[in-house]
Amino acid sequence: MTGKLSIVMFSGTADKFIPLGVLAQAAGAMGMEVNVFVTGFALLGFTKKKNELPFPNEFKAMAPALMDGMKRGKVQPWDEMLKEAKQLGAKIYACSMMAGVMGLKKDDFGPLIDDIVGAASFLGNAEGGQVLFI
Amino acid sequence: MTGKLSIVMFSGTADKFIPLGVLAQAAGAMGMEVNVFVTGFALLGFTKKKNELPFPNEFKAMAPALMDGMKRGKVQPWDEMLKEAKQLGAKIYACSMMAGVMGLKKDDFGPLIDDIVGAASFLGNAEGGQVLFI
Amino acid sequence: MTGKLSIVMFSGTADKFIPLGVLAQAAGAMGMEVNVFVTGFALLGFTKKKNELPFPNEFKAMAPALMDGMKRGKVQPWDEMLKEAKQLGAKIYACSMMAGVMGLKKDDFGPLIDDIVGAASFLGNAEGGQVLFI
Repeated sequence: MTGKLSIVMFSGTADKFIPLGVLAQAAGAMGMEVNVFVTGFALLGFTKKKNELPFPNEFKAMAPALMDGMKRGKVQPWDEMLKEAKQLGAKIYACSMMAGVMGLKKDDFGPLIDDIVGAASFLGNAEGGQVLFI
Repeated sequence: MTGKLSIVMFSGTADKFIPLGVLAQAAGAMGMEVNVFVTGFALLGFTKKKNELPFPNEFKAMAPALMDGMKRGKVQPWDEMLKEAKQLGAKIYACSMMAGVMGLKKDDFGPLIDDIVGAASFLGNAEGGQVLFI
Repeated sequence: MTGKLSIVMFSGTADKFIPLGVLAQAAGAMGMEVNVFVTGFALLGFTKKKNELPFPNEFKAMAPALMDGMKRGKVQPWDEMLKEAKQLGAKIYACSMMAGVMGLKKDDFGPLIDDIVGAASFLGNAEGGQVLFI
């Protein structure tokens, strides 16, 4: 398998980080090149300072059962999945424009972030592969 | 037309099921191969037990006018659109991990779900085509 | 660069219009063919009548700081970015079905909208390129 998966990670609600982790890890394990471009509210999930990511209001009542199910099913937390994806070669970039808007510098991000780049650079990397917007 | 459209259906608010139905049906009618991978809260739309899908809070006030417009415009309900897409060859899969987390088994899903599969299997099917994350 | 980027713009919250503008403009500047298909609540952003686009409830508290950061960073408003993308060749279409459901006619849309088309026509245009669902 020689495909390439690029993910624009924009959404900042806690639930959306699960498919981010799952898809990045699965694609990495299949030998695909994986590039993640973190922007918008999703940047809050990648700072050294831990921000509590909100659950979408519409599904808040289901959050405890879901968290329980993930524990019971031994589902890895999303950041562990991304760590594994990175060990398989995935790259994770923070969006330079939105980082600037939110006052975040390279040093504010945790070790999951490889670099801060612009949207054009991400789109260039993504060429010829598949792109998801989460 | 020989393309392939793969859709990761994650969002569980009622509005997002409309583009799911429209895109799957349109792509099917154009002769494209269509694969849908249902995960996250969207699984609630595919169980035998009917769950009421919430409208996004931000647009709740518009819901009645929208439902009215759909009736007036004779827009098919999303599950009818998916049924037609399936008659044209579309396949709809439930995500094994999230089904497990939510305690859902094959028998809990309605007839729209063809099978329960993992993310890697879906990504493998998706290769060489276009992928959307809804 | 000869790629093609097609964007289904469905979400109607204010935040999502930023990546729409950024990605369309960046792709246009890279010489990519850009097609945007506006549907769902996102249509509210493209009418002559100015609708106030809501901020997602989960992140409402951050909106003022974000708007401030965008001003300080001299980030263009999303509609300016789209105008530039259009000068670079991008096309923006409104979804005929949802426009009908919402009672919107060609004349109700502002100058960013090139035409009203169906989903099949959009998917046909998108073939062979990358597709995002925002």
